[in-house]
Amino acid sequence: MVQSVAKAFKVLQAFDAQHPAMTLSEIAQQADLDLSAAQRFAHTLQQLGYLLKHPGTRQFSLSLKSLDLAYHYRLSSQLVNRAMPVLHHVSKETEETVNLTVLDGTEVVYLERIQSRHVLATNVTTGTRLPAYCLSPGRAILSRLPNDIACSVIAASDLVKHTSHTETDPDRLIDLIEAARQQGYAACFEELYHGDASIAAPILGPDSQAIGAISIATTLSRFSREEVVERYAKLIISAARSVSAY
Amino acid sequence: MVQSVAKAFKVLQAFDAQHPAMTLSEIAQQADLDLSAAQRFAHTLQQLGYLLKHPGTRQFSLSLKSLDLAYHYRLSSQLVNRAMPVLHHVSKETEETVNLTVLDGTEVVYLERIQSRHVLATNVTTGTRLPAYCLSPGRAILSRLPNDIACSVIAASDLVKHTSHTETDPDRLIDLIEAARQQGYAACFEELYHGDASIAAPILGPDSQAIGAISIATTLSRFSREEVVERYAKLIISAARSVSAY
Repeated sequence: MVQSVAKAFKVLQAFDAQHPAMTLSEIAQQADLDLSAAQRFAHTLQQLGYLLKHPGTRQFSLSLKSLDLAYHYRLSSQLVNRAMPVLHHVSKETEETVNLTVLDGTEVVYLERIQSRHVLATNVTTGTRLPAYCLSPGRAILSRLPNDIACSVIAASDLVKHTSHTETDPDRLIDLIEAARQQGYAACFEELYHGDASIAAPILGPDSQAIGAISIATTLSRFSREEVVERYAKLIISAARSVSAY
Repeated sequence: MVQSVAKAFKVLQAFDAQHPAMTLSEIAQQADLDLSAAQRFAHTLQQLGYLLKHPGTRQFSLSLKSLDLAYHYRLSSQLVNRAMPVLHHVSKETEETVNLTVLDGTEVVYLERIQSRHVLATNVTTGTRLPAYCLSPGRAILSRLPNDIACSVIAASDLVKHTSHTETDPDRLIDLIEAARQQGYAACFEELYHGDASIAAPILGPDSQAIGAISIATTLSRFSREEVVERYAKLIISAARSVSAY
């Protein structure tokens, strides 16, 4: 491991929504580096174009160039490329929000999202990470992974009651994942936000294990739980199957 | 400049749509490094989680973590945060594709995009860079930058005829930018693709210079050029103004 590279990434990762712009001493504190290291790496990252320095405030912030890696990731992802036409199809058919997600540790990561004009949510965008245990894509993916992996993800999750409907009992979560395996889809209602409703199906790789999920996200203000399943279960299963590699 | 950091980013930047997965020797070639440097930095980036190594093929590819920086950039961008509710409003009003863009050198970079269900384009996504001279957001931004900057961007641009309608004469481009300044918007028709139509207005910063643009993208298969302007010119001007800092 080249330590200076690790330190440079500590500096970059120190910037987030809570710390959009920082002075060198703030960077040192957030990145857990001494001031001279923070200075060397911030200036190197500035020269490479990944950080901007604001002349007035002497604060640094992430630059446009930080979009490039994600852009290259998405362009080079075979999963994204295979899924995009299907996401667009489901979006046109349903006029609901359609997501492509993968599992990373205990979290679901949003790779692509086509928003509905019915319910515009500004807070979930590409790269967003949300807990897998209480989301339909998370349960759909876990339903087509080996049982011991699903159990270990649930065991490692911080099971928080986001609403009164959030299931946080590990055994019942395993039952819900088993039910998703049998149904071919997972549906979650109001487990993360009040009124949310989503339904997801797993995308399978060549070994028939889940490599991601497609989900439709809508709201209980327009449909009952039963209507969400009736309308969208078959569609989401066939959409996910058409992206699957088998 | 810490050279090892620069080399690490050369390795990361070597991955793109043409090179989604590479062996160490391919990385060395693309990143212009010797094999042992490519090996050291690829393994460091793998340990840091930015590259994945595929056991079977011994190829490396970008990992999910490469989405994180872009996610943090967007969350921390004041422009994105201010613009999102307005983009959603314009999307709902028009049901067309709505974009937030900024200028970087001679290119327009897409920061956010809410797609229309009428014309789903799979090839433009967050982080996409396209030439400013032939796009309405590019001309809208240039119309509210100092004249010498607009001229130098046009002079530095590779003026390519993407279609028979692409304007590539530098003097006429400056005239079109001047017209956009007077109208408050820029409209482009079929200058990048056959049938494309878009209209954009500049977002102004505290010094009344453009810091970005909002645009509506549609198609000439549904509207004439005159209809695009009639329907959307006022809306795009007021949308951009409501995000402007003055």
